Amino acid sequence: MEELASIRENNMSLLFNTIAQIKPVDQSLAPAIQHKLDNLTKPQGSLGRLEELALQYALIKQTLEPKLEHKLVMVVAADHGVADEGVSAFPKEVTAQMVRNFLQNGAGINVLARHTGTRVVVVDIGVAEEINTSHPALRNCKVALGTKNMVQGPAMTKAQAVSAIETGIRLVEKESGQGLDILATGEMGIANTTASSAITTVMTGRSIREVTGRGTGIDDTGWQRKASVIKKAIRVNRPRAEDTLDVLSKVGGLEIACLAGVILGGAAHNIPVVVDGFISGAAALIAYGLCPAAKDYMIASHCSVEIGHRVILKYLGLNPLMDLSLRLGEGTGAVLGINLVEAGVKIMTQMASFESAKVSQSI
Amino acid sequence: MEELASIRENNMSLLFNTIAQIKPVDQSLAPAIQHKLDNLTKPQGSLGRLEELALQYALIKQTLEPKLEHKLVMVVAADHGVADEGVSAFPKEVTAQMVRNFLQNGAGINVLARHTGTRVVVVDIGVAEEINTSHPALRNCKVALGTKNMVQGPAMTKAQAVSAIETGIRLVEKESGQGLDILATGEMGIANTTASSAITTVMTGRSIREVTGRGTGIDDTGWQRKASVIKKAIRVNRPRAEDTLDVLSKVGGLEIACLAGVILGGAAHNIPVVVDGFISGAAALIAYGLCPAAKDYMIASHCSVEIGHRVILKYLGLNPLMDLSLRLGEGTGAVLGINLVEAGVKIMTQMASFESAKVSQSI
Repeated sequence: MEELASIRENNMSLLFNTIAQIKPVDQSLAPAIQHKLDNLTKPQGSLGRLEELALQYALIKQTLEPKLEHKLVMVVAADHGVADEGVSAFPKEVTAQMVRNFLQNGAGINVLARHTGTRVVVVDIGVAEEINTSHPALRNCKVALGTKNMVQGPAMTKAQAVSAIETGIRLVEKESGQGLDILATGEMGIANTTASSAITTVMTGRSIREVTGRGTGIDDTGWQRKASVIKKAIRVNRPRAEDTLDVLSKVGGLEIACLAGVILGGAAHNIPVVVDGFISGAAALIAYGLCPAAKDYMIASHCSVEIGHRVILKYLGLNPLMDLSLRLGEGTGAVLGINLVEAGVKIMTQMASFESAKVSQSI
Repeated sequence: MEELASIRENNMSLLFNTIAQIKPVDQSLAPAIQHKLDNLTKPQGSLGRLEELALQYALIKQTLEPKLEHKLVMVVAADHGVADEGVSAFPKEVTAQMVRNFLQNGAGINVLARHTGTRVVVVDIGVAEEINTSHPALRNCKVALGTKNMVQGPAMTKAQAVSAIETGIRLVEKESGQGLDILATGEMGIANTTASSAITTVMTGRSIREVTGRGTGIDDTGWQRKASVIKKAIRVNRPRAEDTLDVLSKVGGLEIACLAGVILGGAAHNIPVVVDGFISGAAALIAYGLCPAAKDYMIASHCSVEIGHRVILKYLGLNPLMDLSLRLGEGTGAVLGINLVEAGVKIMTQMASFESAKVSQSI
């Protein structure tokens, strides 16, 4: 309520309206969906989580004949001022280089998205240099040339945070209008595990040590520095856990804000959102903070190597589908998750029933 | 060695020759494969198990440019005399009914195989009735009209067990000649978790309680009966753990024997075998008992709800890719596993390198 009041007061009409539009998923079709799943030629419940996914998907779509055709991963990129503190194993310019790699289909997400039939949209919400390319998959939505260094003050203004969130909402709205069945979140941003750990420690109340990992691969000294940087950023900014936008703007990132908007936009348009790893998880924490009902639309694809991700999943009560020791981000785990959701939906819609296949039921 | 001597003495030339042909996977290309994976545009190792799969696959294929196109799941069906003891929630005729369902593309495996681009071959190695159908996907290889009831004596003769194993080997040989890159195991057979639990308790030395689950969904009374039946079958038959064929023939099943042959055939032809759940796991135990080197070619797709499956995986030292609470069998988990192997292979062969994409490496 406090969140909503603050959002209304600050004239954030798109964000306010979107949150108002998100309803907990209507469960009334659940018995009919379950009945359909139970009449397929298999022991009841024997396809486990695939059946759970079919149920969740069909409930969100409110139909016994769900379709899953149009799949999209939003890969949102931004830079982080805090990269100047030496918290990453990679130099800052890699963010822009990887955006170009995404557009040339050379990155991990391109390969796995193609493998799963998922379209890739790349969003520049705050890369520190101009991506002077016009490409059908690129959305130029820069809010700033990266965030500011959060050890010296807020990473961004609240207006920038809201702008990035609303960009995410608008991107989904636009895609939704052209036909979109399911969404995956992805990201790129050197130093964004630092921002994600900061968000996670503040939002969940767990210690910095419990939510800080090695990102792209820092050593022990690097990890100590990263933990100190997070501690300092929190001391300097004093983000208030009960004010999600305060946390996001002070110690967050532009891609995290935009992805929170993507999740909210998905929920508002009855589009299930398959959430990737730790950074996407931090965005899910923000989306949940702004609108707890959005959780019904989230599907946790995998559990990342980044230790803070487990904390987020537990906090949100999400049970990840896979644990493949991934820690790349970009949406790589999420598109594999989409593949499993699709498997579940096909089970529900393509299998024979005991009656149609003339198979005897259990004794 | 004792196994090999016994096999040779009994004039099982195909089985003997196949086992002799299986070599531990040559690891000499590992550094070159790892170097290639490490030069792709991602932090080293950040695609976790997908990279492990790529490495294993490329080593089996002995190439830096592996291809993965031809995918096949062998769904092997047979009946079990022990079904007469009331150990299953489903009546015996369901085995044949499900074979027909497989041929009509109505079963779970059909849906998931299609989803992952995997061809389905259905093998009748011992269904209790004649499947009077000629269908391009059906292999009529019946060794017997099901096994005998193992509480009254051996489930089958050693000659039948060897015949079923050699059938599996021949089936793979034939498919391999027509182009086959990867194999998945699947099965159907009412009461086959009972045989699998019996094999598992004998081969691993763990208690019946620790390896016996609820199969297709029996209640507490049914479970007690099932455990008693297994105990009785072992008391009556006295299978000797050190003699794999003795265990297989006394308390095994024809589909388990055939799948052991499929695994050995895969290993002999450098075809990775993605192993499904508990029953396929029991076949993997048999294959491993006959030829430990076959393990190098196995990939554990998932961990089943059946508690004995964890015991098998631990015994074999296999780390399953997924835990989706599946307990259907048919190869459903294995074809999803193939999909992940394919993802790993595509990562290795389709991603850009740091150099080609002009991305800076770690500091």
